[in-house]
Amino acid sequence: MSKNLTKRSEDYSKWYNELVVKADLAENSGVRGCMVIKPYGYAIWEKMQAELDSMFKETGHSNAYFPLFVPKSMFEAEEKNAEGFAKECAIVTHYRLKNDESKPGKLMVDPNAKLEEELIVRPTSEAIIWSTYKNWVQSYRDLPLLINQWANVVRWEMRTRLFLRTAEFLWQEGHTAHATKTEAIEESEKMMNVYADFVQNFMAIPVIKGLKTETERFAGAEETYCIEALMQDGKALQAGTSHFLGQNFAKAFDVKFANQEGKQEHVWGTSWGVSTRLMGALVMTHSDDNGLVLPPNLAPIQVVIVPIYKTEEEFDAISHVVDDLMKQFKKLRVTVKYDNRTTQKPGFKFAEWELKGVPVRIAVGPKDLENGTFEVARRDTLTKNVVEKEGIVAYCIDLLETIQKDLFDRALEYRNTHITEVNSFDEFQEVLENKAGFISAHWDGTAETEEKIKELTKATIRCIPLNQQKEEGKCVFSGAKSTGRVLFAKAY
Amino acid sequence: MSKNLTKRSEDYSKWYNELVVKADLAENSGVRGCMVIKPYGYAIWEKMQAELDSMFKETGHSNAYFPLFVPKSMFEAEEKNAEGFAKECAIVTHYRLKNDESKPGKLMVDPNAKLEEELIVRPTSEAIIWSTYKNWVQSYRDLPLLINQWANVVRWEMRTRLFLRTAEFLWQEGHTAHATKTEAIEESEKMMNVYADFVQNFMAIPVIKGLKTETERFAGAEETYCIEALMQDGKALQAGTSHFLGQNFAKAFDVKFANQEGKQEHVWGTSWGVSTRLMGALVMTHSDDNGLVLPPNLAPIQVVIVPIYKTEEEFDAISHVVDDLMKQFKKLRVTVKYDNRTTQKPGFKFAEWELKGVPVRIAVGPKDLENGTFEVARRDTLTKNVVEKEGIVAYCIDLLETIQKDLFDRALEYRNTHITEVNSFDEFQEVLENKAGFISAHWDGTAETEEKIKELTKATIRCIPLNQQKEEGKCVFSGAKSTGRVLFAKAY
Repeated sequence: MSKNLTKRSEDYSKWYNELVVKADLAENSGVRGCMVIKPYGYAIWEKMQAELDSMFKETGHSNAYFPLFVPKSMFEAEEKNAEGFAKECAIVTHYRLKNDESKPGKLMVDPNAKLEEELIVRPTSEAIIWSTYKNWVQSYRDLPLLINQWANVVRWEMRTRLFLRTAEFLWQEGHTAHATKTEAIEESEKMMNVYADFVQNFMAIPVIKGLKTETERFAGAEETYCIEALMQDGKALQAGTSHFLGQNFAKAFDVKFANQEGKQEHVWGTSWGVSTRLMGALVMTHSDDNGLVLPPNLAPIQVVIVPIYKTEEEFDAISHVVDDLMKQFKKLRVTVKYDNRTTQKPGFKFAEWELKGVPVRIAVGPKDLENGTFEVARRDTLTKNVVEKEGIVAYCIDLLETIQKDLFDRALEYRNTHITEVNSFDEFQEVLENKAGFISAHWDGTAETEEKIKELTKATIRCIPLNQQKEEGKCVFSGAKSTGRVLFAKAY
Repeated sequence: MSKNLTKRSEDYSKWYNELVVKADLAENSGVRGCMVIKPYGYAIWEKMQAELDSMFKETGHSNAYFPLFVPKSMFEAEEKNAEGFAKECAIVTHYRLKNDESKPGKLMVDPNAKLEEELIVRPTSEAIIWSTYKNWVQSYRDLPLLINQWANVVRWEMRTRLFLRTAEFLWQEGHTAHATKTEAIEESEKMMNVYADFVQNFMAIPVIKGLKTETERFAGAEETYCIEALMQDGKALQAGTSHFLGQNFAKAFDVKFANQEGKQEHVWGTSWGVSTRLMGALVMTHSDDNGLVLPPNLAPIQVVIVPIYKTEEEFDAISHVVDDLMKQFKKLRVTVKYDNRTTQKPGFKFAEWELKGVPVRIAVGPKDLENGTFEVARRDTLTKNVVEKEGIVAYCIDLLETIQKDLFDRALEYRNTHITEVNSFDEFQEVLENKAGFISAHWDGTAETEEKIKELTKATIRCIPLNQQKEEGKCVFSGAKSTGRVLFAKAY
C-alpha cells in the first residue's frame, strides 16, 4: 500500500491530520466539529479505558452515570464555572420536530414544543453531580464520596482537530466529596499521580507534574494540578488535570454534612479528567514518517505475522507453522494477527502494518521454514533480526517490553533536551522560535505578565512544576522579583 | 435497617419504584425524565456490558463511536425513521449562553448564536452511521461492516419511569452492512439469538423469540426480531430488538458497493440494541417483598460475610477466620465482601444485604468458631444451612450456580403458566383482566384489528413467535381467517 504521508519535517500539523485518518483512528463526521472514532482507534481507547478504570477502582472509586443535560438554572449556580463554559455550550431549546407544511418530506422544529427551561448539553458535570450529592451526603459517615463517570461531553469549539479539540469528546470525570480540606487536596494529588503513572507507564509518554496558574485554572477550582507532555514538534500538551474545588460547589449546591460533633459543615470537593485527547498525545509523541508507532501496552495488535510465499504448497506449509505459533502467543496473552490475505503482496502488508503501528512484525518464508527461523522486525526502530524458531515467543515478549521501555526513554530524552532555561525575554523569544519545547523562566506571578507574554509569543505558562526549586531571580518579562522558575510553551 | 418496602401484592408499580431507589440502583435527577444511575446499579450494568461486549466481539463485531448530534437534514433522510422519532427529539438550536443583563448572575441563550441548522440529539444512530458508511464501503471486499457502539441516546418521553422509560438512557446499538439480503437477515437473527442467550443464561430471564407486527416494527425496518419477557405482574417487557433494515438506509444515504462482477449495488443493513431497560426487567423478574434478588452472574457482591459477636475478642477471632476465607473466595474469582462495620448490628446488615439482593450470605458467630461451621443463607429462597468449614468455598460456588439456575427455572415456570390460549374475545378480556400474562390467540393479520384490540384492552401483539405452529383458526376479534396464534399482552 502507498502511504503518501506528509513528512513531519515538511508540515507537522498536516502529517498529524493525515496520519489519524490514514491509520484508521478517526475521521471528521458530517456534524460540525464532531469526529467519528473508527474501530482501530476505538480499540486503543478501550485499552486506555480498561487500564484507567482498574486504576480508579484500585484507588477506591466506583462508576456511576449522571444526566447528559443540565438545566440552565442548575448550570449557572456555581458562577465561575458557568462563566467559564457559557461561551461554548450546546443548548437544547425544543423537544419535538413536526412536518414542514411548506416542504413535503422535510421536518421543522415545532414552535409549540419549546422547553420551559433550556437544557445545556454537559460541557463538564460538576453542576449536575453536585446537585445530586446534596441528597447523598448527610453525615460524615457518607464521606468520602468517590465517584467516576465515563461519558461524552460537548464544548462548542470553533476550530477543531481530530482528538485534540472536538466539539464532542469522550472522557472520564471523577467527582469526589470529602470531610476535610486536607483529604480533598490529597485526593487531587493522588489522581494527578494516577494519571502520571498511566501516561508514563502505559502510554510511554513522560510528563511533568505541576500546578496551573490562576489564569489557566479550571473554572470553579481553587487549584488545578496537571500533567504536561511534550510533542515532537516542541509544543506542549496538557494530558490530564485534577482539580481541588475547595467548597465552591458545596456552597453553590448547599452540600453539607454533620461532622463527628454533629456540627453542619460544607464538604470539600475534587474533580479530575482525561479524555480522547490522549489519543492525540499518543500519535504525536511516538509516531514517525512511516505512520503510527504504538506502545505495546496499547496496541490492539501487538504482533503481526506475514507469510511470504510463491506457491500454494509454500503457503500451506507456512500456515501450518504459524498456526502453532499463534496458539503459543495467545496462551501468553499476546495479541497476534496472521495476515493471510491472498489478495495483497507482502510489501503492501508490511507498509499497512507499519502505518498502523503494530510493534512487532514476523515474516516467514520458505527459507525460514528450512532454517527453522523467523524474521522479526521492530516498528519503532525499523530494524530486523533473524530469530530461531525455538524461543521465538519468549523473544517477542521480551522485545515488546523493550519497545515499551525504549519508547518512553526516547520520548524522555527528547523532552529533557527540550527544556531550556532562559534569563531574558530575547532569549525566551529566540528559543521559542528556533528550538521550541518547554522554556524554564522566572515569572513575576502576575496574570498581567502572563497575558502579555501570551499575546506577544503565543506561549503560555504550562505549569508551576511540583518539583520547582527555590531560586531567586527576575521575571524575564517585567524584571520583577521571582522565587522560582515556571514552564512556558506553545501548546495544543 | 428498616425497609418499609411496599408489598408487590399491594401495589406492584409502587414496589418497583421504591425498590429501585432503596436498593441504590437509580434515582430521578433534577433533569426532567433523566435518571442518575447510582454506583450499585451501575456496577450491575457494567457486568451486563462486559458480558455483552465479549459476546459481540466473539461474533466478529468491533466497537466504534459516532457523534451525539444529527443535523436535521441528515436526520430526515430516511423518512420513516425520521417520522418515527420526530415527536420525541431533543433539539439543539444554539451554541452559546451570555450574561442576562436584566438579571445579575444569570445567563440567557445568546440570540446571536443560533445554529444555521438544528442538531437532533440522537434518539438512535442509523442516520449518522449510514451517512458515514457511505465513505467506508466501495467494494464487496469492504463488507460486511460489523460495528457496535456503546452510547447514550435521548427520546423525549412524557411519562418516564426509572430504567423502563427515561428521556436519556444508555444502550448499545449494533449497525451492520452486508453484500446480500440473506446475510443481513442471518445477522439480524444471530443477534436476536445472542440477546436471548445473554438474557436467559446471564440474567436468568426466559424470553420468547419472535417477530414484531408491522405496527410495532422499528421505524425504517423491514422486519423487527424481538425477545419478549414476562414480569411478575403478568405484563410483558420487550428485552431486546434486532432489525433487518433491507436497503432502506443504504438507499437514503446512497451506500453502494461494487460486487464481484463490478456491478454497483446498494448494501443491506441491520441494527440491534439493548438498553438500561434490562435493569428494569432484572428487578421485576426476580425480586421480592424483601428487596432485590440478583442472579449470581450479575451480582456486584456474590457473597457477603457478617460477623456476629459481643466482645472485641470474638470479633478479632472471627475476623481472623474470615480473612482466610476471603482469600480462598478471591482466588476462585468469587466477589466477596466482609461487612465488618462496627456501627451496625447484624440484623440491620442482614436486612440491608437482603434489600440489595446479595445471593449468598454467610454469618459467623463464636459458636460457629467452636464447631467449625458457618451459617449460609440463600437470598432467593431465604433458607439457611449450617455448613462445615472444610469445603465451605466449594459449597458456596455450587450454591451460586444452583441459585442462577433456580432463578431461571422459577421465572420459566411462572412464564409458562402465564401463556393462555383463548378462542374468543370474551375469554381474551377475561384472562387479561384476571390472570394477565401472554395471551395466545388467533389474529386476522390486519393493523386495524390490532389497533382496535389495543384501544379496547390496552393489550398489544408482543410478537409472532418464531416457533409459531400452523393452525387453522378464526381471529378472536374479527372472526376472519388466521393460520396461527400470536402473543398478546399488556406491556411495559
